[in-house]
Amino acid sequence: MAKSDVNSWQAVQAEVLRRIHARIWAPGEMIPNEQALAEEFGCARATVNRALQSLSEAGLLERRRKAGTRVALHPVRKATLDIPVLRYEIEGQGAVYGYTAVQIAEHAPPEEVRSAMQAGAGHRFLHVKSVQTADGAPFVFEDRWINLTTVPEAAKTDFEAISANEWLVRHARFTHGQISFAAVNADAEVAAHLALRQGAAIFVISRITWDGGQAITHVQQFFHEGYRMQTEL
Amino acid sequence: MAKSDVNSWQAVQAEVLRRIHARIWAPGEMIPNEQALAEEFGCARATVNRALQSLSEAGLLERRRKAGTRVALHPVRKATLDIPVLRYEIEGQGAVYGYTAVQIAEHAPPEEVRSAMQAGAGHRFLHVKSVQTADGAPFVFEDRWINLTTVPEAAKTDFEAISANEWLVRHARFTHGQISFAAVNADAEVAAHLALRQGAAIFVISRITWDGGQAITHVQQFFHEGYRMQTEL
Repeated sequence: MAKSDVNSWQAVQAEVLRRIHARIWAPGEMIPNEQALAEEFGCARATVNRALQSLSEAGLLERRRKAGTRVALHPVRKATLDIPVLRYEIEGQGAVYGYTAVQIAEHAPPEEVRSAMQAGAGHRFLHVKSVQTADGAPFVFEDRWINLTTVPEAAKTDFEAISANEWLVRHARFTHGQISFAAVNADAEVAAHLALRQGAAIFVISRITWDGGQAITHVQQFFHEGYRMQTEL
Repeated sequence: MAKSDVNSWQAVQAEVLRRIHARIWAPGEMIPNEQALAEEFGCARATVNRALQSLSEAGLLERRRKAGTRVALHPVRKATLDIPVLRYEIEGQGAVYGYTAVQIAEHAPPEEVRSAMQAGAGHRFLHVKSVQTADGAPFVFEDRWINLTTVPEAAKTDFEAISANEWLVRHARFTHGQISFAAVNADAEVAAHLALRQGAAIFVISRITWDGGQAITHVQQFFHEGYRMQTEL
């Protein structure tokens, strides 16, 4: 390997990966310490640290303070998914994006939604149902609750004109969230909005996003039949 | 912030995130350069670089060589998924793991599978269908093709005794792969193996893994009804 610069941790990572894949360093085996690797590779110890950290985050190494670093016995592969604003996903495919609000109403959510959002008894909610289309065909039906107590500006927003998906990304940056992926049979409402038969298998993304301790929104997105979410390992 | 050490890029990242969320640095706006931030935070420029790199990978910043760093206008949120060996996922839930091979046969795959695996005409394939159970209940039905030309040791392996999922992780480390997630209605075979009604909405993970230019395996995993894959944002 060439002498290191600030970006060469990727080169260290590639060499460590090669040794793991070639089983030069076998599953469960200790690897040399950072200082020894830095000397071998002729780079800064911080560069080795960055590379090992990255491989540890990817589940390929197990690092223990003081005990050193081992090749993982049971590697957990991690996949990274992009969660884009739907308009950019649709337009990125070269399709014409469309948006229609089918219901906008201020009312109380079902208890399971309120509880998942850890919302207080006095909190107000906006319920927005909408359909987003690609070249005129339904792409996703969205059933969303927005906590107006957390995001009061949402009460003054025209969700006939802009999707809550896009508005929230622009106006209510979140600190963290939970996301889950599942399959459901389309019920009558989902089938009607996606223009497909009841019972069709639908890919659903459910998400709650938070601004610190306050939930911003709870959303279920029901994708058109055949939707596939893809990524690299 | 305290004076930096090799691990304090996380502290820099937290402060940059805070400024983005508080809109001190608004979407689309240039942020100060690395040297200026390093001086402000009293840390090494490499530490700032590491923090900005991480936020850029997460889609919150846009970095251009020479042009500098902006807050992303259209942040793409990234979610990281763990893809564990199923046995560890099941046992990790405190359930008893079970495995049954329902078909093990060497024969040619359908053209779409061969083509997706970029396999040569002379390549040999093992077709393994199996069911993995949690506390006796079907958890996943797996339909897998293994390229024996790439992984010849698989021909001598007893897949009645160990799942291909687990054996491959131990014996055929891969360099990269493609993974996708979708929903399908259970056909007669899937319904029978998962002990559910035909037409039930099933979450499917499809995966092809590679060792460099050679495909190792092509697998579809059909999960039990109601399966939910979850992660944090």
